[in-house]
Amino acid sequence: SRTITWNPLMAEKGGFKHFMLKEIYEQPRAVSDTLAGRLFPERGEIFLEGLNLTDEQLRGVEKLNIVACGTSWHAALGGKFLIEKMARLSVEVDIASEFRYRDPLVDEHTLTVLISQSGETADTLAALREAKAKGGITVAICNVVESSIARESDGVIYTHAGPEIGVASTKAFTTQLVALYLLALHLGRVRGMIDAVRCRELIEPLLSLPRKMEQALESDEQIQTIAREFMHARDFLYLGRGLQYPIALEGALKLKEISYIHAEGYPAGEMKHGPIALIDENVPVVFLCPINDTFEKAISNMEEVRARSGRVIAVATEGHVGPLGDVDALITVPETTDEIAPVLTSIPMQLLAYHIAVLKGTDVDQPRNLAKSVTVE
Amino acid sequence: SRTITWNPLMAEKGGFKHFMLKEIYEQPRAVSDTLAGRLFPERGEIFLEGLNLTDEQLRGVEKLNIVACGTSWHAALGGKFLIEKMARLSVEVDIASEFRYRDPLVDEHTLTVLISQSGETADTLAALREAKAKGGITVAICNVVESSIARESDGVIYTHAGPEIGVASTKAFTTQLVALYLLALHLGRVRGMIDAVRCRELIEPLLSLPRKMEQALESDEQIQTIAREFMHARDFLYLGRGLQYPIALEGALKLKEISYIHAEGYPAGEMKHGPIALIDENVPVVFLCPINDTFEKAISNMEEVRARSGRVIAVATEGHVGPLGDVDALITVPETTDEIAPVLTSIPMQLLAYHIAVLKGTDVDQPRNLAKSVTVE
Repeated sequence: SRTITWNPLMAEKGGFKHFMLKEIYEQPRAVSDTLAGRLFPERGEIFLEGLNLTDEQLRGVEKLNIVACGTSWHAALGGKFLIEKMARLSVEVDIASEFRYRDPLVDEHTLTVLISQSGETADTLAALREAKAKGGITVAICNVVESSIARESDGVIYTHAGPEIGVASTKAFTTQLVALYLLALHLGRVRGMIDAVRCRELIEPLLSLPRKMEQALESDEQIQTIAREFMHARDFLYLGRGLQYPIALEGALKLKEISYIHAEGYPAGEMKHGPIALIDENVPVVFLCPINDTFEKAISNMEEVRARSGRVIAVATEGHVGPLGDVDALITVPETTDEIAPVLTSIPMQLLAYHIAVLKGTDVDQPRNLAKSVTVE
Repeated sequence: SRTITWNPLMAEKGGFKHFMLKEIYEQPRAVSDTLAGRLFPERGEIFLEGLNLTDEQLRGVEKLNIVACGTSWHAALGGKFLIEKMARLSVEVDIASEFRYRDPLVDEHTLTVLISQSGETADTLAALREAKAKGGITVAICNVVESSIARESDGVIYTHAGPEIGVASTKAFTTQLVALYLLALHLGRVRGMIDAVRCRELIEPLLSLPRKMEQALESDEQIQTIAREFMHARDFLYLGRGLQYPIALEGALKLKEISYIHAEGYPAGEMKHGPIALIDENVPVVFLCPINDTFEKAISNMEEVRARSGRVIAVATEGHVGPLGDVDALITVPETTDEIAPVLTSIPMQLLAYHIAVLKGTDVDQPRNLAKSVTVE
């Protein structure tokens, strides 16, 4: 049986200036709701109630595709990293409008995961039908209960984010990341790549995640100040490595969508292969560099930017900012694991875009040219 | 035995204002040289002299990775499309600086293809060593004979482009596309996915390719006029679908590298999921829409841009421009197959970036902040 956990009355601004800001602040609750009833730390297990696939079926999967558009595609890129790491299963990420037209390699041993907040995204729905027509197994990650993509997939993992009204997705994105983390853990367990002890260790940081998200939100005022300083820049670059690369893409997309500033995300290691030509004192660079195994590499990329007079806005981990040296702006998030950090670093990305857009006076909740869910091709 | 097909004396400008322009014009010859001795249309076969892998080994490959940086990464994205289509083998494309740090899934049935013009790109070399350490099979696509990546790989397919001096890669890119086409054909043949008759059909358009590249170069003067009209734009978007998506990325990178204009490439179907917010009369959109199965979809994406007052520079196929309607600038390339079209549409991308950079007075052959081959991490 499916449960509808929210009603239309909840979709009001509740004292916030914009739906987007309200939804940014709802994220700790949205993540709690997405985790509720799904974690069994004592047994080292994950329970995904609507997944609808037997352990046998999951063990038979030889390849996994994740197909999505826009912000959901950024979540998919994070999901690839998590699933390959925890379940040691090859994951291919594709953009729905590309996947459906390229005669994709799908057979009965292929699991295709479709991500869509609304569950009605036209290209993603068409991709789902293409995967099903080829005999593949399908699982949806959706926020809207009983939406088309949720209904037509073999299984579904709902993100219980509640209604998202702002056109620029925020809480849907972070709950998609959490849903993918749960799927990665579950696949890893069922396929014998992680044992109960390891699973428990990986569940652990989820338990403190909503509280750490609250802490990350406390930078709001400071980010407003940073926004005032950088709002006149015409171009931004966003850089990250590993799991922070999709967050760089998502941070750039947020800014682009609501402030109309041309922002672009790149894997930090690619900068030297072209985008560094753009950098001068007029192009701020947002560096996502929480503490992890590639922290030193990120610092060295940051130094290259500074050597070209680039201004750096660093997003780092509390207590691990010493090696950053002299940055133009610093935002910190609480410490957690490398796999969970994207949920935390997403928050300053959203707030930075939000405050710049507000200062520029754009229509934050309904930016020009964009629709909340793209139900045409 | 390996043959060095060029000498340092050839590396002069030969009457051209810049090495980059000379190298753009050398492409028909570079492609001819890359094809030379490798096509057997009568037998419907491809011969890749340095591949060094038995048909048995190629048949045993279960998964293929292509790993590269910058422009070579764009060629890799095209290669995925070609190999999946012709050989029905799953291909994962990764950026070298990401691949090497994420404990990639590689075993003895995995073929990793490394693409690097210089054969010395530090991250790509490290990725090669990572793939080898995991017991994988490796093949290099390099332009410089006896370079580190070429030497350390199990096999190599040389692009016989001759020395590339301009920092912004041109002839190396188009010959990489051709090398990947040959690899896709060979894999398809050996693995029984295409027969001799089909292989001959797929060889056919290669035979007329150098001549059609010459024809595409004839738009040079017209592109110079377009460059004059659009050189003052601060931002550009480049859009394409399918195999034209990597060319959109590459076109944007060329402009970024040498003119310092912020240009970004996107799959055309993704525009509605964010980047369309950027579009107004100040942001020209370069549309790659040669005739193919998604031509109508591309036209409909183009109409969305025009509805937002965006100015359109269309790159289309001679004889298939009627449906484009009223565009602000039109560049045509000769007709060929969908799989070969990227080699032709690359040429106006290079010329447009080149002429804009020359008009802006930037140092075309040695743009700021960039090195020809990135031999540090």
